[in-house]
Amino acid sequence: MKFNNRNVFVSSNAKLGNNVKIGDNTSIYDNVVIGDNTIICNDCIIGEPTSAYYKDISGYTNPPTIIGANSMIRSHAIIYAGSSFGNNLVTGHRITIREGASIGKNCLISTLADIQGNCKIGEFSRIYSNVHIGELTTIGNYVFIFPYSIFTNDPQPPSNMLMGAVVGDYSIITVHCSVLPGVKIGKNCLVGANSVVSKNIDDFSYAIGSPAKKLKDIREIYSKQFPEEKHYPWPYSFDRGMPWQGLSFDEWLKNQTEYND
Amino acid sequence: MKFNNRNVFVSSNAKLGNNVKIGDNTSIYDNVVIGDNTIICNDCIIGEPTSAYYKDISGYTNPPTIIGANSMIRSHAIIYAGSSFGNNLVTGHRITIREGASIGKNCLISTLADIQGNCKIGEFSRIYSNVHIGELTTIGNYVFIFPYSIFTNDPQPPSNMLMGAVVGDYSIITVHCSVLPGVKIGKNCLVGANSVVSKNIDDFSYAIGSPAKKLKDIREIYSKQFPEEKHYPWPYSFDRGMPWQGLSFDEWLKNQTEYND
Amino acid sequence: MKFNNRNVFVSSNAKLGNNVKIGDNTSIYDNVVIGDNTIICNDCIIGEPTSAYYKDISGYTNPPTIIGANSMIRSHAIIYAGSSFGNNLVTGHRITIREGASIGKNCLISTLADIQGNCKIGEFSRIYSNVHIGELTTIGNYVFIFPYSIFTNDPQPPSNMLMGAVVGDYSIITVHCSVLPGVKIGKNCLVGANSVVSKNIDDFSYAIGSPAKKLKDIREIYSKQFPEEKHYPWPYSFDRGMPWQGLSFDEWLKNQTEYND
Repeated sequence: MKFNNRNVFVSSNAKLGNNVKIGDNTSIYDNVVIGDNTIICNDCIIGEPTSAYYKDISGYTNPPTIIGANSMIRSHAIIYAGSSFGNNLVTGHRITIREGASIGKNCLISTLADIQGNCKIGEFSRIYSNVHIGELTTIGNYVFIFPYSIFTNDPQPPSNMLMGAVVGDYSIITVHCSVLPGVKIGKNCLVGANSVVSKNIDDFSYAIGSPAKKLKDIREIYSKQFPEEKHYPWPYSFDRGMPWQGLSFDEWLKNQTEYND
Repeated sequence: MKFNNRNVFVSSNAKLGNNVKIGDNTSIYDNVVIGDNTIICNDCIIGEPTSAYYKDISGYTNPPTIIGANSMIRSHAIIYAGSSFGNNLVTGHRITIREGASIGKNCLISTLADIQGNCKIGEFSRIYSNVHIGELTTIGNYVFIFPYSIFTNDPQPPSNMLMGAVVGDYSIITVHCSVLPGVKIGKNCLVGANSVVSKNIDDFSYAIGSPAKKLKDIREIYSKQFPEEKHYPWPYSFDRGMPWQGLSFDEWLKNQTEYND
Repeated sequence: MKFNNRNVFVSSNAKLGNNVKIGDNTSIYDNVVIGDNTIICNDCIIGEPTSAYYKDISGYTNPPTIIGANSMIRSHAIIYAGSSFGNNLVTGHRITIREGASIGKNCLISTLADIQGNCKIGEFSRIYSNVHIGELTTIGNYVFIFPYSIFTNDPQPPSNMLMGAVVGDYSIITVHCSVLPGVKIGKNCLVGANSVVSKNIDDFSYAIGSPAKKLKDIREIYSKQFPEEKHYPWPYSFDRGMPWQGLSFDEWLKNQTEYND
């Protein structure tokens, strides 16, 4: 139904891997590189030119856009030139990603996510519906950002300062949170719904409120499903889609060198 | 202006009623059924295939999508196969509705609403701009959900539990609220702006805050427009677009069998 | 890359100025007027007909839509007929603007902003990502509204009352705020993150909370960048894109007659 080559535009300077599918009404602009077996659904724009294009259309060269292999980009995505994505990306609909975003392998970016560019997201992280990520934000690996949470970057608006927030590996930001500029959220943190994170949060903290304050150590929280067990750090209790799926987390960790808590 | 049959795709397996209009750049996929006099505006996708399609394109059969009669779906809607809608649906722009949503007659779904599927919405309910409804949520009849309110479904993220919230008939969730997984909001409730609803709320409660707590009975709230009258339950003071429009609510109720407060 | 006249529809009743560019897949409907040097990117709808069109397609006349000169409207915009915009408008992607919006010169309207129409925004104001502006809202000049803040208009939902909020010149509403119907926010105010503004706020107030309360006078707030200086009123410390850029604010003010604090 979806891949009829109807109203499709693919630049002659784009490089498509083997078995790539492009949906109807999609445009792929100059210098886009798409890995093998990736599906781009309909009504997408991949390699959207940056502002410089409009100032000098004939002199402009589109920066490279790298989409990994085995990815699935759902319809109405707008992805700017100059962003790169690891393999196995999955997206919802209507994502907007500006230039200079660097996103690792195996990430999920859900419907209506608005990623402002010049930011970094690690591997196996999940950005849910309608999350807004301001420029200069750095998000680690195995991070979950739930719907309607946002990251800002002007610490005293309006100003000419620009400071990104940082979220450590394995942390979880739940819904409707505002993470303020320059804040560092540690590793293995959990931020409760509707929080305003205005100060740094230490590793292993469960923080909530406006301003968000540490309520307890996440390692004290019991599972709602298995009440005699602890739920956090969550990698010991959840593995769906994670690289330790089918292994124990500790077993997988032994083979990792990056992890240094 | 809008219905020029320009770049329109309608599957030969779709069934369009009498006097249906399809806007330019719209795609109607397999096994979509559209009732009489319905207008689908431009740039829509109706019957978007589910994930199974991408795994086996040639072996896939699109589940049926039912759009009622006398409906108006504004531009850039994405509606998945396997959802059904009663008559007289009205939508804003850019709605996204995943598979398995069951939505009753005479509903409004506004601009940018993001309905994740496998959920149920009753009749005459109004889902306003940018509302996010997670899977397994159940919303009753005559319910109002105002902008940027969201319903979540993982009670301890990340986990493999999935629990939908329930909203009773005639209830109102105002703006920027987070309704947490498995919560039951009763009938005739009013939830104030920016609330986090983490516990059940009894019928006829006005609740607000984070976590939301009952402040008073809604039947104690006076009208801002007619200060000597009570405003809630609202069906006694508001009837625009409701089935009791032009009647008194009590008169209409007498003929209903579903209402059992 | 973008302007190939592919699947473009321009009504014969639209008036395009000199050097206007129209992106692929864009529709420009009847009675749209676009000023010189303006760029409309791809997949836009400009002059979207109002509800009256669907009731009587043949008898309908599209109200005029005025887009100023030197503007840049990014892709997937939906702008209704009957709205007007001053020169030098810049937008993000996927903005939705309903009929009867009156927006002054040099405004920014970012990605996913949802402006419900019959509202007024002054000059040099910046409406960031995912801001929602209800009908009848009035926003002054040099105002900043940051992501996910919303303006509502039904003071006792559901009701037949409709009251817009008002935001005075030079004021700043930060992220995730809800401004309730009929509220007046004065000039030179700063509203903190995640606030619910339910009562009027006096000029020069820094207010925060739910409900938002005045915490201090903005003129008491020091700069985070230059700690020995005051940061607000911000026009003394920030001029990027403002008409006093390169002048001192006081020098510029002397030549203004509208400012009367």
